[in-house]
Amino acid sequence: MSTAPKDMNGAESVVRSLHAGGVDVCFANPGTSEMQFVDALDRTKLMRCVLGLFEGVVTGAADGYARMAGKPAVTLLHLAPGFANAAANLHNARKARVPMLNLVGDHALRHQKFDAPLSADVEGACAPFSDWLRSGRDAGSFAADAMTALAVAKGQPGRIATLIAPADIGWDAGGKMAEVIAPKGPTPLDEHALSAAVAALESGERTVIIAGNTVLEDTDALALLHGIAEKTGADILAPTSNRRMERGRGRFAVDKIPYPINAALETLAPYTRAILVEAPPPVAFFAYPGKPSLLLPVGCNTVTLADVDGHGPSALAALADRIGAKRSQPRDLPALPVPQAGAITLKNIAAALAHALPDNAIIVDEAVSSGGATFEAGDTAAPNTWLALTGGSIGIGIPLSAGAAIACPDRPVITLQADGSAMYTIQALWTQARENANVTTIILANRSYEILKGELHNVGAQPGPDALSMLNLDRPHLDFVALAKGMGVPGRRVEDVTDLMRAIKDAAKEPGPYLIEAAV
Amino acid sequence: MSTAPKDMNGAESVVRSLHAGGVDVCFANPGTSEMQFVDALDRTKLMRCVLGLFEGVVTGAADGYARMAGKPAVTLLHLAPGFANAAANLHNARKARVPMLNLVGDHALRHQKFDAPLSADVEGACAPFSDWLRSGRDAGSFAADAMTALAVAKGQPGRIATLIAPADIGWDAGGKMAEVIAPKGPTPLDEHALSAAVAALESGERTVIIAGNTVLEDTDALALLHGIAEKTGADILAPTSNRRMERGRGRFAVDKIPYPINAALETLAPYTRAILVEAPPPVAFFAYPGKPSLLLPVGCNTVTLADVDGHGPSALAALADRIGAKRSQPRDLPALPVPQAGAITLKNIAAALAHALPDNAIIVDEAVSSGGATFEAGDTAAPNTWLALTGGSIGIGIPLSAGAAIACPDRPVITLQADGSAMYTIQALWTQARENANVTTIILANRSYEILKGELHNVGAQPGPDALSMLNLDRPHLDFVALAKGMGVPGRRVEDVTDLMRAIKDAAKEPGPYLIEAAV
Repeated sequence: MSTAPKDMNGAESVVRSLHAGGVDVCFANPGTSEMQFVDALDRTKLMRCVLGLFEGVVTGAADGYARMAGKPAVTLLHLAPGFANAAANLHNARKARVPMLNLVGDHALRHQKFDAPLSADVEGACAPFSDWLRSGRDAGSFAADAMTALAVAKGQPGRIATLIAPADIGWDAGGKMAEVIAPKGPTPLDEHALSAAVAALESGERTVIIAGNTVLEDTDALALLHGIAEKTGADILAPTSNRRMERGRGRFAVDKIPYPINAALETLAPYTRAILVEAPPPVAFFAYPGKPSLLLPVGCNTVTLADVDGHGPSALAALADRIGAKRSQPRDLPALPVPQAGAITLKNIAAALAHALPDNAIIVDEAVSSGGATFEAGDTAAPNTWLALTGGSIGIGIPLSAGAAIACPDRPVITLQADGSAMYTIQALWTQARENANVTTIILANRSYEILKGELHNVGAQPGPDALSMLNLDRPHLDFVALAKGMGVPGRRVEDVTDLMRAIKDAAKEPGPYLIEAAV
Repeated sequence: MSTAPKDMNGAESVVRSLHAGGVDVCFANPGTSEMQFVDALDRTKLMRCVLGLFEGVVTGAADGYARMAGKPAVTLLHLAPGFANAAANLHNARKARVPMLNLVGDHALRHQKFDAPLSADVEGACAPFSDWLRSGRDAGSFAADAMTALAVAKGQPGRIATLIAPADIGWDAGGKMAEVIAPKGPTPLDEHALSAAVAALESGERTVIIAGNTVLEDTDALALLHGIAEKTGADILAPTSNRRMERGRGRFAVDKIPYPINAALETLAPYTRAILVEAPPPVAFFAYPGKPSLLLPVGCNTVTLADVDGHGPSALAALADRIGAKRSQPRDLPALPVPQAGAITLKNIAAALAHALPDNAIIVDEAVSSGGATFEAGDTAAPNTWLALTGGSIGIGIPLSAGAAIACPDRPVITLQADGSAMYTIQALWTQARENANVTTIILANRSYEILKGELHNVGAQPGPDALSMLNLDRPHLDFVALAKGMGVPGRRVEDVTDLMRAIKDAAKEPGPYLIEAAV
């Protein structure tokens, strides 16, 4: 099955070449203009094909897969509207620098001038959400374009590459296998930045090291980072949202910059020196009347030791070397008290999760307004990998979980999912059921866009009935257990914190997906 | 409440000016950058605010509202990802030339340079799906920009106007009321085209008149069109997809150009002359190997009597006048036989619907692969208004129905909804429940992307197991009754055609939404 035939069409040459480059999962929501890819995937049997019932599921799952597999999946999307449906979760992946390769079917080249019903500006639609974009030109060069896209996607630390695939170059004969292209490595360490970082740490001033992306994924880099902090008295923070953090007992706890604007400003106020490692200068999620956009204090002396295209772990190794710091040893935080029976609250939920989360779990965090409370659980729980909403566009959690479970079938996945956000891509529960993904989705059901009530207050308004009607999710209540059942996922609703803990433990023991609607 | 105060912020000036221009419904999925609009809508109480749990619901509902109300609603969307989520149904509305005005919140102007997590190229994201696009500049000119957008949206026969709304110009003081601007009228009739159309009709050759948009909405224009056809022997066809058709007993039956490529080519093969009235030259939905893109035969002499910016009814009046044709009288087609008990099939479903559809219903048609069978029902049913999927981007039916019901609270809405397509915007059921919309959603559950199996065949492939895994919606089955229950909509599943008829009649008698899952 897997030997490339002499006569291939363009689509088959792309599938075979990408597979030779290590791509073996395709997340798809195909339409007519992708039928030759469906056919090529079917005939070659080289990739696992995972269907999403909506394109936001496809890209969210490809994101979760890539964060855990450490390599890109390919997506199959349908024309400009299909790409647009996929774009919110592409935005999230792009902000996290997660690698992904999108194949976006388009009308046949000869058909494009006729303004057919599904015609639109495909390139225009793709450009704002892609780091790299090209339109395939003919069957013979199609695979070479795909391999260029793959190299871009895999370039450190990951990019969104989009290749537009006109239908006819897929079905035309003359496809040719293309070689694997080595991706670009990280930008090298800047010796001036290194010296400036050393000077900051030796300045005696209050210094914060803000470390993101690969540093947070790498327990050895975290040991070095903590060694540097201990040696110099610097503090450590992570950005507000991170694609992957290795957390839990036996590992280092790293605090995040808080989301709420006042708390963020307060957290960073003490520092006159900042060192950035694979993190941009921290910026407020939104602007608010009378508040600054940049979160570090005015006049804070900021050094970028490694930017988001750099390699934080080796930059930290060089920095440790210069100041004579050694790897630190993690010291576990004291366990949170086991909650007693009673309602689930923002006060007891972290402890409940900390005690209930299974060993070696992947935690997907789209808790939103409950996220400040739930994040704490990750430090004292069993060792875990924590994946967050990275670009602020809600609707990532359920698909991200599906993709993570496909990448790591032997690890339990637990999703901490806000109810309002869940509804953007609720269709991903069906993909979880179909793929028998070992995911437990915990819906944190406060029946409101709770976070927006704070935001309304931040612009100086008090909500009246019409405002509340746009911020509350009551009338009618969403019944997530029924929604899950409709997509083949069993579930239950819990209102007591000890029931929540028991439900998580029970669900983690069983294979396949489960949903817990937790009244908060 | 409704007198404009002297001191208004930008957001309030926009809300008050648009309301003075006749806009009184806002479909919204707001986020932080739109909080000042939420506040302004709350304080002024001038518009009905309808919340969607996903942006595709918002634009689909605004489309349905505009088709039935004959005027635009305003939508409230959140940054580039929120617009992208809305784009598929904007694409559909745009192809149908439905009027709509989008307010897309963006970061405050001073915040835009900082690449915050939700930052992206908002203008770039909006442009491919908008006919007109502008970014608001300051609080004082904000309402004037909104009124320009409104005039563009209302220009014959309707356009998508998008105004980007930076947060700070919404909350800044200095908002000013802006005047209503008269929209552009239709392009005038071209006398040369009129003479050419007369010549076609008098040529003695096989001639087809293809009439779309406002002609199909106007029973008087249809009477003239049929009078012209009867006088000259010309045939009449509608485009494959139409935003609104007035149909049913006592009205004129108009056949559509079929969707399947072979049937479309066969239907148009006889004609050597074609006259287009508010319709573009018919083009295949997709290209296929060895098939033409344009559907009229090569060499067919085609006259555009009125293009999509023209006014078909007055063009037809002028044409009738020139050839001396009078209004025709509709002749009802013979009733379809009442189906006997048995499974629901593509053979008996039209008759079942024809007998069960309530009087004066609005029918929303996203039947897709069942659409060829169900369309027939509209001709012999009680008088009805038929709204179709217009841009080929699936996921319009459930939101479109919600919007149509809000525009016409006294008419029953019946949605003919393919199951695969339903899952793109299933969240709209919640909006139906919240608004107590009188919609009966009939899910045509064939548990597959059935139409794509035909499309796979059309590119010359036979589906194997991996292809079928991307085209079948089994494993697990979708339980639409459970999904509806999860969003507060009661429902039942039917497998017998007489049960289907009874269920439709029962549902139409009750206020509020209902869902029928019909096994087909």
